[in-house]
Order: sequence, then C-alpha cells, then structure tokens
Amino acid sequence: MRVGVLTGGGDCPGLNAVIRGIVRKGVQEYGYDFVGFRDGWRGPLEGDTIRLDIPAVRGILPRGGTILGSSRTNPLKQENGIRRIKENLAKLEIEALVAIGGEDTLGVAARLSDEYGVPCVGVPKTIDNDLSATDYTFGFDTAVGIATEAIDRLHTTAESHMRVLVCEVMGRHAGWIALHSGLAGGANVILIPEQRFDLDQVCAWITSRFKASYAPIVVIAEGAMPKDGDVVLKDQSLDSFGHVRLSGVGEWLAKEIEKRTGKEARTTVLGHIQRGGTPSAFDRWLATRFGLHAIDCVRDRDFGKMVALRGTDVVRVPIAEATAKLKTVDPKLYEEVGVFFG
Amino acid sequence: MRVGVLTGGGDCPGLNAVIRGIVRKGVQEYGYDFVGFRDGWRGPLEGDTIRLDIPAVRGILPRGGTILGSSRTNPLKQENGIRRIKENLAKLEIEALVAIGGEDTLGVAARLSDEYGVPCVGVPKTIDNDLSATDYTFGFDTAVGIATEAIDRLHTTAESHMRVLVCEVMGRHAGWIALHSGLAGGANVILIPEQRFDLDQVCAWITSRFKASYAPIVVIAEGAMPKDGDVVLKDQSLDSFGHVRLSGVGEWLAKEIEKRTGKEARTTVLGHIQRGGTPSAFDRWLATRFGLHAIDCVRDRDFGKMVALRGTDVVRVPIAEATAKLKTVDPKLYEEVGVFFG
Amino acid sequence: MRVGVLTGGGDCPGLNAVIRGIVRKGVQEYGYDFVGFRDGWRGPLEGDTIRLDIPAVRGILPRGGTILGSSRTNPLKQENGIRRIKENLAKLEIEALVAIGGEDTLGVAARLSDEYGVPCVGVPKTIDNDLSATDYTFGFDTAVGIATEAIDRLHTTAESHMRVLVCEVMGRHAGWIALHSGLAGGANVILIPEQRFDLDQVCAWITSRFKASYAPIVVIAEGAMPKDGDVVLKDQSLDSFGHVRLSGVGEWLAKEIEKRTGKEARTTVLGHIQRGGTPSAFDRWLATRFGLHAIDCVRDRDFGKMVALRGTDVVRVPIAEATAKLKTVDPKLYEEVGVFFG
Amino acid sequence: MRVGVLTGGGDCPGLNAVIRGIVRKGVQEYGYDFVGFRDGWRGPLEGDTIRLDIPAVRGILPRGGTILGSSRTNPLKQENGIRRIKENLAKLEIEALVAIGGEDTLGVAARLSDEYGVPCVGVPKTIDNDLSATDYTFGFDTAVGIATEAIDRLHTTAESHMRVLVCEVMGRHAGWIALHSGLAGGANVILIPEQRFDLDQVCAWITSRFKASYAPIVVIAEGAMPKDGDVVLKDQSLDSFGHVRLSGVGEWLAKEIEKRTGKEARTTVLGHIQRGGTPSAFDRWLATRFGLHAIDCVRDRDFGKMVALRGTDVVRVPIAEATAKLKTVDPKLYEEVGVFFG
Repeated sequence: MRVGVLTGGGDCPGLNAVIRGIVRKGVQEYGYDFVGFRDGWRGPLEGDTIRLDIPAVRGILPRGGTILGSSRTNPLKQENGIRRIKENLAKLEIEALVAIGGEDTLGVAARLSDEYGVPCVGVPKTIDNDLSATDYTFGFDTAVGIATEAIDRLHTTAESHMRVLVCEVMGRHAGWIALHSGLAGGANVILIPEQRFDLDQVCAWITSRFKASYAPIVVIAEGAMPKDGDVVLKDQSLDSFGHVRLSGVGEWLAKEIEKRTGKEARTTVLGHIQRGGTPSAFDRWLATRFGLHAIDCVRDRDFGKMVALRGTDVVRVPIAEATAKLKTVDPKLYEEVGVFFG
Repeated sequence: MRVGVLTGGGDCPGLNAVIRGIVRKGVQEYGYDFVGFRDGWRGPLEGDTIRLDIPAVRGILPRGGTILGSSRTNPLKQENGIRRIKENLAKLEIEALVAIGGEDTLGVAARLSDEYGVPCVGVPKTIDNDLSATDYTFGFDTAVGIATEAIDRLHTTAESHMRVLVCEVMGRHAGWIALHSGLAGGANVILIPEQRFDLDQVCAWITSRFKASYAPIVVIAEGAMPKDGDVVLKDQSLDSFGHVRLSGVGEWLAKEIEKRTGKEARTTVLGHIQRGGTPSAFDRWLATRFGLHAIDCVRDRDFGKMVALRGTDVVRVPIAEATAKLKTVDPKLYEEVGVFFG
Repeated sequence: MRVGVLTGGGDCPGLNAVIRGIVRKGVQEYGYDFVGFRDGWRGPLEGDTIRLDIPAVRGILPRGGTILGSSRTNPLKQENGIRRIKENLAKLEIEALVAIGGEDTLGVAARLSDEYGVPCVGVPKTIDNDLSATDYTFGFDTAVGIATEAIDRLHTTAESHMRVLVCEVMGRHAGWIALHSGLAGGANVILIPEQRFDLDQVCAWITSRFKASYAPIVVIAEGAMPKDGDVVLKDQSLDSFGHVRLSGVGEWLAKEIEKRTGKEARTTVLGHIQRGGTPSAFDRWLATRFGLHAIDCVRDRDFGKMVALRGTDVVRVPIAEATAKLKTVDPKLYEEVGVFFG
Repeated sequence: MRVGVLTGGGDCPGLNAVIRGIVRKGVQEYGYDFVGFRDGWRGPLEGDTIRLDIPAVRGILPRGGTILGSSRTNPLKQENGIRRIKENLAKLEIEALVAIGGEDTLGVAARLSDEYGVPCVGVPKTIDNDLSATDYTFGFDTAVGIATEAIDRLHTTAESHMRVLVCEVMGRHAGWIALHSGLAGGANVILIPEQRFDLDQVCAWITSRFKASYAPIVVIAEGAMPKDGDVVLKDQSLDSFGHVRLSGVGEWLAKEIEKRTGKEARTTVLGHIQRGGTPSAFDRWLATRFGLHAIDCVRDRDFGKMVALRGTDVVRVPIAEATAKLKTVDPKLYEEVGVFFG
C-alpha cells in the first residue's frame, strides 16, 4: 500500500515525531511505502511531493518544525479542489492519506473522507490544546514549559524592581497555555479568553500583592478581554496562518494597571518562541504514539477517524466529531486555580 | 481545624508544590491552620514539628526537595508507634493528617486510617510512576525530561566515536522512566525490569544499527535483568531510603556488549540528578492540583482516601486499594515501542 | 570594619553571587561585618538598611535578581544628597561602601570617592556588556544564552512556514547581545546600534536566503537604526530604570521587509526574560570572583577602584576611567561576523 | 586553493561550529575548496575523505559531535605514516591542512608542519580546558554548564535526606571543570588533580556543614587523589580515546566519608553527558571565531600556528609551544575559591 502524509496549519513541536512514527511502523511492520506532500493541502492539490522513507525520517525526532512544510491552503475553497486531489492521489497510486493538523486541516480531512470518499486518517495538532476529544495535543506541553521558564525568569526582575510584569502567552480562544504556565510559574493573576476579566479586580489583586511586599506577575492569554468594552487592539490583522499579530492586550493591560495602581508595569509578549524548537519529552512520547496508532488506523482501513489521548491510552474517534467543538477551560477548573490569585 | 502534613520516602520534584497547594487553599478558603511534621513519619512519632503557614510556603513552588524533610521511618515497626502518633496528634490538637509519599508511606497511612482511626488523606508520590490507581505521579515527568536531555547529549558522542552508549536510568521494579525517556530520546534498545532481556537479541540490534552506519544508544532501567541467570551486581545493598546503590547492570551490559560485538561501549549512570531540582511545568501543575484536592478531602472528612489523576481529572480512591499492586509496563505497550529497536 | 553594600540600576543575573562573595570572604577571612542598603543609592540616602550576614547570603548563588533591591535614585541629584549619605554612613559606623551597578551607579561611586572622600569600591554590572575596562560583565552570558535558545526555536518555525523571523534583543547603545546571540543562533542578518543599517541590503540578504530555500532569521538590537532617517518609534518613553519600552524597531523592520520583499515576516521581542532568572555557570563564576576581589580592595583600602576581568584575571581599575567611555562593537569584529549574513 | 580539514581526539561541543566557520569564510571570501578527512588522522593516512562544502555545513552550528568523525589514530606511530599522508595530500592536490584537536592531534600537526613540511594550522580543542596558550577552549563552557545544572539538582536531594552527595566530573590531569562547576554550583568541597586532598580535612568540612544544618555537596575531578597513598581504582584501563573508564574515585570517596563521618553519602558520575549535545552560546561564539581565524592563517600561509583566545581577541601562537605544557589550576586560584569550603 502507498500512503500519503501531510502537515497543515501552524508550526508545532512534535510534528516530525508523528511523521517518524508513521513511517517507521508503516515500512517495518506493514511494508507500506510513503509519499510526503509539501505544505499541507497544497501538496495533494498540486501534486507536490517529497521522498518519505526510513532515511528521510532519521534524526528528526528531536527537531521542531516539520520536514514536510506547512500551509493553510484549503482545497475546499479552491476551484475543483477535491477533483484535483483525487486525480493526484490516483496518479500517485495513493490509497490512504494521513493528515496531521488542527481544526481546519482536520475539518477538510473529515469532509474528504465522509463526503467525497477520500480515505483519510487524522492526527490532532494544536499548540493551544483546544481540540475536543483528546485529553492533550502534542506541542502544548512544550509551549507550557517554555512559558513557565519565562515566567520563572520574570519573577526575579519583578522582585528586584517591585514592578508588575505582564506576560502575554498564546491562546486566542482558549486559555490552556495561560492557565497551565500561570499556575506552574506561580503567577498572581491569570486571565483567559473564556472569562472576561474585571479590571478593578485585577488591580485589587495587584495592590494586595504589593501590600504583602511582593511584586505581581500577570499571565494573560492573547485572546483575553476585559469585561466592559473591547480592547482597541493596535493591530488586529490575522496572518496567513490565522495567528493574531502582536495583539497588544498585554501592553494595553500594563498601561491600564499603571494608570490605576500607580505602579510601574512592563509587558513581555512570548510570541513565536512558544511554538518552535525541540519538543519536550512528553510531546515526543505523545506525538510518536499518535503516529504509531494513525498507521494502525490505515492498516485497519478505519478511515474518517482521528487518534486521541484518553488517560494513558490512544483511542480512535470520528474526525468530524472531534473538530465540532472547541475545548475551552472549564469554569470550575479556572475557579480551582483562582485560590492563587492576589 | 488543625491539619498535619508530612512527606515520606525518596526525594521527588513537586513535593513543595503539593505542600503549597494544601496550605494556600486550607488557610485561605477553609480557615484551617497547619502543622508541618519533620522527616516523614518520624515527625508525628516524635512530635517533631515545623511552622507551616502562608509565609512558610512562599516561593517554594519551583524548588525541588521538600521543606518538611523526609525519612523512611515506619511507625508500624516502632514500639508503641501507633499509640505515640495518636498521643502526639491529640497533644497538638490535630484533627487530620495529609501524608505525601510512595507505597510505604501511604501503606502506613492506609492502616492508620482504616485500622486505627487516625484520619489520614494520602497524596501519591513516586518518581518511578509505578503506583496503581493514578495515570501519573508527579516527579516522573521531570525525571523523564532530565533523562531525555541526557540521552540527546549521548547521541552525539556515540556518533562521533561510533561507540555503543549505555544509559542506566532509575526504575527498580518498573520500566516507566526507561520506556518514556528511551522513546523520547530515540534509543535503539530499551530494557525494562518487566521483561528479562535476551543478550543475543540486544547484540543483534546493536550490530544491525552499526551496519546502517549509526551508533546505538541503549537505555536500561536499573532493575532490568538478562534472561539467563542474574547479573552478579557489584553492590546490591539498599540505602536507608530503599534505593539500590550503583547497581552495575548498565556497566555489566556494556562489558558484555564489548565482548560479544567487538564494539566499544560506555556506560552513564544518571543516578540522583533524576530526582532533584526544579519540577517541570507538568509536575508543578499535577502536584499543585493534588494538594488542592487533598485538602478538599480533609474538608469533606473523606479519610482513608488518596487523590489520583484520571485523564485530566483529579479523583479520590481508597489508599489501601491504590497501594495494593505495583503498576508495571504493559507488555503491549512495550511491544508498541519495540518498532524502534535495532 | 563595617562595610556597606548596595546594588543599583537594572536587574542582572549574578548580583546575588557578587553579594555572597563579598560577605563570605569579608566575614570569614577578614572578620568584617556588613550592612545591606536597600534599593541602590536610596538606601544610604535614607538610611534604609537590611541585615547582611552569612545566613542572609545562604542559597542565593543560583537566584536571579538582588536580595538588596534596586533603584535608579541618583544622590547627586537630590538635595543635600552627599551630606545625607555621609551622615548616614557615619551614624551606621560604615567605613567602606561597595557599589554594584552600571554606568550611573558607578559614576556616583566615582565622584563620591574621588571628590567627596566617601571610600567606595565598584563592581561593574551591565547586561549589555558595554562597560569599558572589563572584557565581560556578568549577566551578559546569561542574556546571550537565553536569546540564543530563543533564536534556536525561531529557526524551526521560520523553516516550517518559510517566513522571515525578526528577533529583537536588548542593547540600546551597544550591539553585544545581538552580535553574540545572532552568531551563536545562526542568524542570517544581525543589526546593531553601532552601524546604521541599509534596508536595501537587509532585503537583499533576505531574498538571497529564500533563493537558497531557507527562511531567514534577523536579530536586531533594540537600539539599531536604519541609514536614512530615524524610525518613528511608537513609544519612546524611558521607564524609571532607563529601559526603553517596547521600542518597535523590530516590528517596524518586519513590516518594511514584508512591503519590500513580499515575504511574510514576524517579530519576537525578547524583553525582560533576558535579564531575569538563574545566572549561567559563567556568570556565577565571574560574579563570585568579582565579589571576592571587591572585598580585597576594601581590605587594601584601595578605594575609587573597580574590579574588572582581563583574560582570566580579575584586576583593579579606577572607576572614573572605566565609566568614561561606552564599550561598543568594533567595526572589524562586526565585519568578521558578516561572513554569515545572507 | 584546496584545504583539508580533520577533527581528532574526544568528542567536544563546538567542533561543527569550527568546521562551519572555516568552510563558510574559505569558500565565500577566499574561493577555496575543501576536503573533509574522516576520523582524525586516519583520514589523510588512508585517503578517506568526505564532501565538505557550503551545503555540507548547513545547520550544523547547534549540533554536538563532529560531522567528520574522530579517532585517536597517530600517524607518527604508523609505518610510513608521514609518507602516506604526504602522498595522499599530493594526490588530492591539498595545499593546507587544518587540524582541530587536543594535545595529541595538535602534537602531530606541529611535527608534520615543523619537521616534515606539511602545511598545517591548528585549532585547539579540549573539554578539560587544560591547553596552554589559550584562555579557554570551546566545549569547556558547555561541560561546566551541564555539570553546574546537575549540581543544582543534587542540592535538593541532599537537603531532603540530609546526605552527602559526591559528584564526579571530568578532569584527569586538570581540575578546571571541577573548579568552575563546583564554584558555580555552590559545592562545599571541591577536589582537583593538582592538589592531593586530605581526607580528614574533607570530613571536617562535611561535619561542619552538617552542624550548620545543611547537607554537603562534594565535587571531585575524576583524576583527584588523596594525600596518603593512591586510591585503588576498580578499573583503570583507558579506552581507545584515552578516557579513563569509570574510575571510581567518587565512589571510593563516598564510602570513606560514610565510614569516617557516619553520614550517608551517595555518588553521581556525570560521565559522557558532559561532552555531548548542543554547545552553549559561549562555545558556539568561540568555536566559530576559531574557525574564521584558522582559515585566515591558511590564507596568510602562516603554517605551524594555532589559533588561541587571549581576553576577547583571537591570536596566533606556534602549535609546538602551545602543546608543550599542560595548563593546570593555579594554587592561588584554588585558594581563592577555598573560602567557600566547609
């Protein structure tokens, strides 16, 4: 059997580990051969391929990024997109396609599989951890680790100067990175997109922290918003991968805090360093297992399915179901963590 | 209510995070006060206490070790041990005890709670991840991260000299650290206590790796054993914490490999660096949540219970049940990972 | 003898290591006692002190920040500033003062010592490495290490998306951090304040890099400027420590690159994470030795001097001389590194 | 001009950075072409070569190890060694040879250059930092950083259990790694090969540390020896790279400490993890500059010379002179650091 593999959407540590898992098991145990598609759905759309065999996946496990490249090309929005993909797969004699990506990439895979008979298997990828149906996605642990290390560093500079330090982390729609890194980094305030924040409450926490002679750290997700009225963001344009550009909510918040509390406040926007570089051990483990199970789906001809983590098990779920709903932070969990605010 | 807290057994990153979680929530939300006991069960046995309030837990989240100290004192093996503990708890007006520890420490807590009416809540701690009833224990992720980073480094020295490098990691009875760090580090052979290894097979994997012009990395748990006959360990004594001292299985294996394959082989024994230092973000998150849920058990007077991770939820299970059986590596999981051997 | 110690200016990893070195040697070998002054020159100005003995310096070696606090208070600009300092020193029976700080803090120490007879010894501190008379200052190696690790991470996200990534690092007047981290991180363009850059040249390097099928990384110091005309910075206000706030040169450059090359470009501003957290081994070594040698200056009553690194030796130089001139990047060194551009 | 490059001796982070610096500048600025020799002097001896051009050095800067491989082959000890090398160089039309290595590798280069007219340039490499004529060698800073991080971790496990932890680091003849990492890691005793240690003194330091309620960390170089009589090492054989195999001085010391002080003591032998993996930013900077200056030596036909670091300058010295004498720790420096013992 010949199997195609593609990676779509934003960069995420662990993509290469998935690819390696798929190819090692596919070649060694099932005797498959593989075709890599370049730059997400652009690859099968244009028939742009890359060699994908055992030597091609040597040494890629610890490397960030993706050897296949990525894009946000959506074939459903291209003229004759589906027909061109089917023709290219037929020409290349590809019998199954493994799509590794987030909501958009998998959404395409679901429709191709369910509506157009293109045999797809999905592997979930989102650094934001906001995909339903799986306990965790790979890349998230790496991002949380990087953010936590940064927050650890910000503590000492906050203490030395008795300043407020605002750290803006990724998370447009879900606050998982903010919540986990904020808790792990000992932040005094954590603000997430799921709950509009009360600026007076934030300032009260900050003031109480200073009264105890400590300098406060505020961790804010890029998508968090204040209660009354939207922040006028200085630049709201999305890039071609759908990432918000320097959104400014962190910087806006620092200025508001200065105005209201009279304390100096500074902002650090972690940005792209959260999504690059070598994956953590946890993410290498998870991504590798996702790869191994995805190729088992192919062997079982169990198409339209996505691999997912449940506890310590890797299971299969319908792709369509998995991408139907964003996984956001449960208010109860946010409340649980709230004991550390102030 | 006054609550006692103790930490028993070997060092483990995250202990301080648990203590902080218990105290912050207990004081702020429930108005409890706390007594810290020194050095595990020795504390309540001898009435040796330490101040444990909000200032005492400031800044301890990122710190390894335990501010309460630890020991392997077993009060069940001490004359009048239980009576002395009950007297000391009464004298100090302590109404509940949170015991953070592994199999031994929790085993005592289970019996104290179930048989002798001492109201105990347990928090599971084992760097080896071999405790049933919980998906993961804190400390494990940190240990796997340290071991993986070490294996990453060993690759380059193995490649430069075309040598075998054997890396011995922790795990007397369970191979979790070896399995996770070996997979994440791209090891070519992983040997665990759960499955006696075949030296011929190991040498075959090594030889095949060299044939492909790569240098092999072998990750071996300290408790792994060859199929035919036990390794004569050079020093089998246990220390007072029950850790095996430099066991020698890694060094023994390196010598056997040299003899049989004619290739140079070197050993690195990671030892105590796996259990010290700052916890990973994952372990800080898990340990903190365990602390928060343990004090909720106290509030609910739900004694004899232990907190545990199931998926992304923290649940409660009977301590006795949790410590009844060691959680070892499932043969199927070991087989799954075996695709990367050789 | 009683000795006062203060830390002034911005946060810098290694400050605590200096303090520890001074106190350990002063107490143990010379029998001195110490008075810590809070928040730089504000301490002696207002007589605000903190206990500084052996127990106070335990465990602070690996900790970022400064246990003494810091400020940018300049006593020369305060009414009766010098008289008040002299009175407070007399009242506290302090016979010598060790001032740890940058250009400003040391400038005050030089004048106090040379013009007003206050016996001062200086220890140079600047994360920017721009102080003459010393090969390196502590904090610089840590900042370069953090920036290099960030650049390593940016490579993979640049490659996966074939984008330009602009990384803005610290350095208002000197490009040392940009030069060292840019070289160590394999950047394709490095821009420093010492040489105004030619936007056409930068775009030519970027285009040539893309032609070779690689994604370019641009490292730019916050103080770098284009050749023709100043960048209109969106916010040029200095904070009370004299740090430029989010200066925007990185973001400005990314937008210009997009306009001129048609390639997507993103900016990451590393900000305060460069100056916080645990010092590197190199900085702990250097800072500790600076502390040991500073207290030797006090013992020798060799006032008006600053400790400095020359090769592997710690030497003494007049403070006034050391702070007279900023140490900027030699054009020859910048040219040497230029072989890697494009 | 065609230039040969080889790397000899033990693995060392930064080797690839040197190679990249040589090739990038040599090709781009001087128009040279390059031949890589495999496995140190074995390469020119047997004419075993590897392609070495711009694409071959892409992406190798952050990678540990050496893309050229290494060995300890000594052509002076081979039959007709020199004649064979000269013949192979002539056959390959190579006009200059850059040898990157330690004492042995450079010793050969010195004699080939000075006595046999083979035009050689040397680049010093030793993780142990024990080469005269240069302030630092690359690889050393990485090794010190790894050892310091390990010592940081050992502190918490020592404190939690109130045990002695002995950490054995590299350094057969010189104690540089022990001295720097021991100081940076806050060790309480540092033992180096340059000064035989007094076991009673060591035990006195340990006892005094326990009296102050702290647990001691001992850092010992693998080549350190007690005053009276040699330690009977359990395995003194050298490997083919001249590294001592698990020497046991650390383990021996831990047992002696237990016997004499009655305190538990444990040993960690860091071993090969000190010499593998990605180089620190400092080492990447130094190694790259060594490469750039080495190719300038070739251009100037300044043969028989070695590049060396003096302060912040890279200079040239005769290879023969540089390898004549081991650079050991100055007793004065050891005494300076001694203020932290006990």
